[in-house]
Amino acid sequence: MNLDTLLPNLGEWLRGTGPESDVVVSTRIRLARNLADYPFTGRATAAQKGEIVTRVKEAVGRVELPFKLDYHDVPGMTVLDRQFLVERQLISRELAAVLEGPRGVAFDAKESASVMVNEEDHLRLQVLRSGFALDDAWADIDKLDDALEARLPYAFHSQFGYLTACPTNVGTGLRGSVMLHLPALGITKQIDKVFRALQKINLAVRGGHGEGSRAFGDLYQISNQVTLGKSEQKILGEIKEVILTILQYERQARAVLMKERRQAEQDRVARALGTLGSATMITAEETMELLSVVRLGINLRLIDDVPATAVNQLFIQTQAAHLQKLVGHALDGEERNAARAKYLKTRLRELGSHR
Amino acid sequence: MNLDTLLPNLGEWLRGTGPESDVVVSTRIRLARNLADYPFTGRATAAQKGEIVTRVKEAVGRVELPFKLDYHDVPGMTVLDRQFLVERQLISRELAAVLEGPRGVAFDAKESASVMVNEEDHLRLQVLRSGFALDDAWADIDKLDDALEARLPYAFHSQFGYLTACPTNVGTGLRGSVMLHLPALGITKQIDKVFRALQKINLAVRGGHGEGSRAFGDLYQISNQVTLGKSEQKILGEIKEVILTILQYERQARAVLMKERRQAEQDRVARALGTLGSATMITAEETMELLSVVRLGINLRLIDDVPATAVNQLFIQTQAAHLQKLVGHALDGEERNAARAKYLKTRLRELGSHR
Repeated sequence: MNLDTLLPNLGEWLRGTGPESDVVVSTRIRLARNLADYPFTGRATAAQKGEIVTRVKEAVGRVELPFKLDYHDVPGMTVLDRQFLVERQLISRELAAVLEGPRGVAFDAKESASVMVNEEDHLRLQVLRSGFALDDAWADIDKLDDALEARLPYAFHSQFGYLTACPTNVGTGLRGSVMLHLPALGITKQIDKVFRALQKINLAVRGGHGEGSRAFGDLYQISNQVTLGKSEQKILGEIKEVILTILQYERQARAVLMKERRQAEQDRVARALGTLGSATMITAEETMELLSVVRLGINLRLIDDVPATAVNQLFIQTQAAHLQKLVGHALDGEERNAARAKYLKTRLRELGSHR
Repeated sequence: MNLDTLLPNLGEWLRGTGPESDVVVSTRIRLARNLADYPFTGRATAAQKGEIVTRVKEAVGRVELPFKLDYHDVPGMTVLDRQFLVERQLISRELAAVLEGPRGVAFDAKESASVMVNEEDHLRLQVLRSGFALDDAWADIDKLDDALEARLPYAFHSQFGYLTACPTNVGTGLRGSVMLHLPALGITKQIDKVFRALQKINLAVRGGHGEGSRAFGDLYQISNQVTLGKSEQKILGEIKEVILTILQYERQARAVLMKERRQAEQDRVARALGTLGSATMITAEETMELLSVVRLGINLRLIDDVPATAVNQLFIQTQAAHLQKLVGHALDGEERNAARAKYLKTRLRELGSHR
């Protein structure tokens, strides 16, 4: 399979049509699993990792679910393809570049489910959904997990639950994360207060692009830190409750914005579109910041000629690997900034915005 | 005469076609003159000022020169009309708003010559030219001065020369000023050094908009401070020499910009146009800063679809009084920012820039 066929697509989770999609970009659940008969990935030999790949590949191929997963080996992939899959959120940076030996990923055509093999754990199952959809994502990943467990002997301890390479994942092995777009809490400077409250109740907050990444474009991932001693339903229920509160805060902040500085906000949105459509050099970070302003403008109905889906797509398509695939060859940093600006200009023009 | 007929015009001096117009916007010479038989304006009675107006009006009406001057009384004018003439550089802020009693201004259809009556001095003659044109401006104003002197008894002292209300104007009564656009010296942070050197040789530097005004849009007026003890030719020769040096500095700085950061400059120009064409609220100051970037872009040939004349016109048309005349009614500050943005958007679209 040539990954380039994915290029014009948009992962289902990015359509921006899911529940509460004015604030919630996407929902992700992942499960960490290991095979009982092998050492964890970090201590397994290349031969053992090869066997794990073979066994998972076979099991994945036999899974009968509404979505079909195709397996791809990572070691044979170009650096660009790996980065591309990272940007699509189908594999982690670690699987792409840090880890060694036999490893890979299986995912479906809609990019809503994936299974990484020989990441930190032997298996990392993931389901991605558009909008706020923890229940649906749980239903899907639970089925996928059952189907794989029927064919693979999971490392499971009657007292602790699923065993994992890192103790922080033991138990359910579950991490639920919700990506939120919180521009109004940013503008009204309430975001830090919200996040301090989250940390007290053991929820982690990260930038939109995974562990350790800075927050760009007002995108934040909120996820559980505790995996042990609670049922999956309880963990997900706790996340859900918190997200609903943050949702309410963000919407209140947006209402205040619209009441107190509608004209200024209108201007900010118009200028963001103007800059995106006219710059001849632009970094990924600035692009995200400006797209964030546009996304808010759409949700506040300050503009109506740019579809939310297009903005979600631009968030991904303007990232380094996507850009290089679109252009068809490797680009250095400066060249990427020029190519990014050109792509944005063309796309915004296509969107028919003769503003 | 209805001043609104001036609205679609552009003073000849703003065409941007004169010599060295890549750096020099315009050249202005003014002469301060007083009638021998009256106290200076500040000490004259209303009746005396009325007589002065009558006598100057009559003399101006008989002047036979290639340009015909029409006289307008200031006291009967609306505040908006006065401000409009200030923006056109045809009258001073003082004549518009600070001074009292009979006073006025005569100017020609091309707005290249004007005579203020009962400003600080009884007469303030002015000639404005596009580009760097001290000799041409001098030739014109000298003729106008001779023509008026033939009909009006000037206050002249055989030792001191022309007598004026303020001692700093005694002698020639001449102030030559050249408006320069110096963006590259600004970017490369050499501008302060240049200006410190100017002050040592008794030349004054002001923002583009007259006495005490801050420099916006990289526009600077350079003028002589000494009017006494030198001939007009010597004063103008000294200004000329200095301007030619600054011209050279600015052009060198532009060449360095193009060599070292052409792409960044291209981007800055494109973004400036993008912002001017997309903002929904914009202040006069920001407009000038952005138009300055565009003006530089035109002169560096980084853009070719916006004519320099149009940019010069926008500098004037986006000022408060012009804007209100264009819209047809009074506007408060916030409304002006919205009207200015709308006007800029429309004009840039008309310029056919489907960038």
